[in-house]
Amino acid sequence: MQKIDVCLSPELVSLYDFKDKTVVIIDILRATSCMVAGMGSGIRSITPVATVEECLELGSKGYVTAGERGGEKIKEFDIGNSPFSYMEERFTGKDIAITTTNGTRAISLSADADEIVIGAFLNLTSIVEYLKENQNDVILFCAGWKGQVNLEDTTYAGAVIDGLGDSYTYENDSVRVALSVFRDAKNDLYEYLKNASHAHRLRKFDIEKDIRFCATIDEFDVLPILREGKIELH
Amino acid sequence: MQKIDVCLSPELVSLYDFKDKTVVIIDILRATSCMVAGMGSGIRSITPVATVEECLELGSKGYVTAGERGGEKIKEFDIGNSPFSYMEERFTGKDIAITTTNGTRAISLSADADEIVIGAFLNLTSIVEYLKENQNDVILFCAGWKGQVNLEDTTYAGAVIDGLGDSYTYENDSVRVALSVFRDAKNDLYEYLKNASHAHRLRKFDIEKDIRFCATIDEFDVLPILREGKIELH
Repeated sequence: MQKIDVCLSPELVSLYDFKDKTVVIIDILRATSCMVAGMGSGIRSITPVATVEECLELGSKGYVTAGERGGEKIKEFDIGNSPFSYMEERFTGKDIAITTTNGTRAISLSADADEIVIGAFLNLTSIVEYLKENQNDVILFCAGWKGQVNLEDTTYAGAVIDGLGDSYTYENDSVRVALSVFRDAKNDLYEYLKNASHAHRLRKFDIEKDIRFCATIDEFDVLPILREGKIELH
Repeated sequence: MQKIDVCLSPELVSLYDFKDKTVVIIDILRATSCMVAGMGSGIRSITPVATVEECLELGSKGYVTAGERGGEKIKEFDIGNSPFSYMEERFTGKDIAITTTNGTRAISLSADADEIVIGAFLNLTSIVEYLKENQNDVILFCAGWKGQVNLEDTTYAGAVIDGLGDSYTYENDSVRVALSVFRDAKNDLYEYLKNASHAHRLRKFDIEKDIRFCATIDEFDVLPILREGKIELH
């Protein structure tokens, strides 16, 4: 039977072996929600990069530049990290270069994985169905907030585990922890996530509308997957 | 208002500043449960040490030697880590030297704290009342299992947070994560903890009776506190 595990923070990554695994990158507020919203709205590809400089370099080659530091848009960039920006018609068919505080770090730490897919509430069922069909063991990788375990990513990991039901086994308690958090959250996901410390920190940037959207389940039926450094549709 | 935080694993310790804090060490299965059971049953002091050799050295000076590696009693020691061993009448008034896989590590990582107290379900209310009276900010430090976040320690952290109610503030989501886990567990703590992976690992050592005891709330009204390397009654 396939195995599932949850890495609750990038600080715990040394405890996991990514080899031969399918890794789901989770950064609900807001990197992976933006990626899913963008790929579900006609963006052609998203290239995650580590630095602002690399992003601007790709910008000079025609990429749309996107990203944030500490939750704020970077001044020289075309867009920040509101999922609604990624859904604008003017970006249909475009390639985006993105750099974010936590999400990009989780992707680069997963380099040893067999494959890397992008998860958000916005494509929850697509992720669950893909993991069920696929034969790999799975690591749900929560990007967290500056190394801290966060509520929104843990809740999403629990939602995926809940969706997989009895089709997987697990060894580590972090799977049970995530499932308990999801059970406590699921009756009113938006209210629960609004109380997350990360959401509190971001509140000053007026993102209540973003949080509500990021808590929407199955808005898109897409599976963004990383191929040679680019996130594309599966 | 006093602040509370939860460190879900020793691997996350670099994210926390222990200075001026009261730290509650949590290793429910079974180090801190043993310590509370022992201090509640008449043991005079418990000295946590890092190695088997240090423990035997203290043994040669008249200490009772106690501890485990990977959940198993060490052959040369007087007792392992079943809480019932610590409650035997023959140890009344004795000093114990103890070394355990995870609990001792959490204690030594907390060296910068203002004070270190020992928490278990067995003395839950004593811990909650002490934290309420005390003016320090608090870190609930889960010993985990070989660096992994575990269910029983996270659940206990949630129980303390639940007990403190509105008398504390928090910044990090790990506080909410622990609270959600406790809410999912509280209706049948023993059943919930029995499903923990750590419990599964320990099952082979026939410790169901131990797990049931470690899930008992308020069996003892004691507050073990570390003073100059020794755990004594407050």
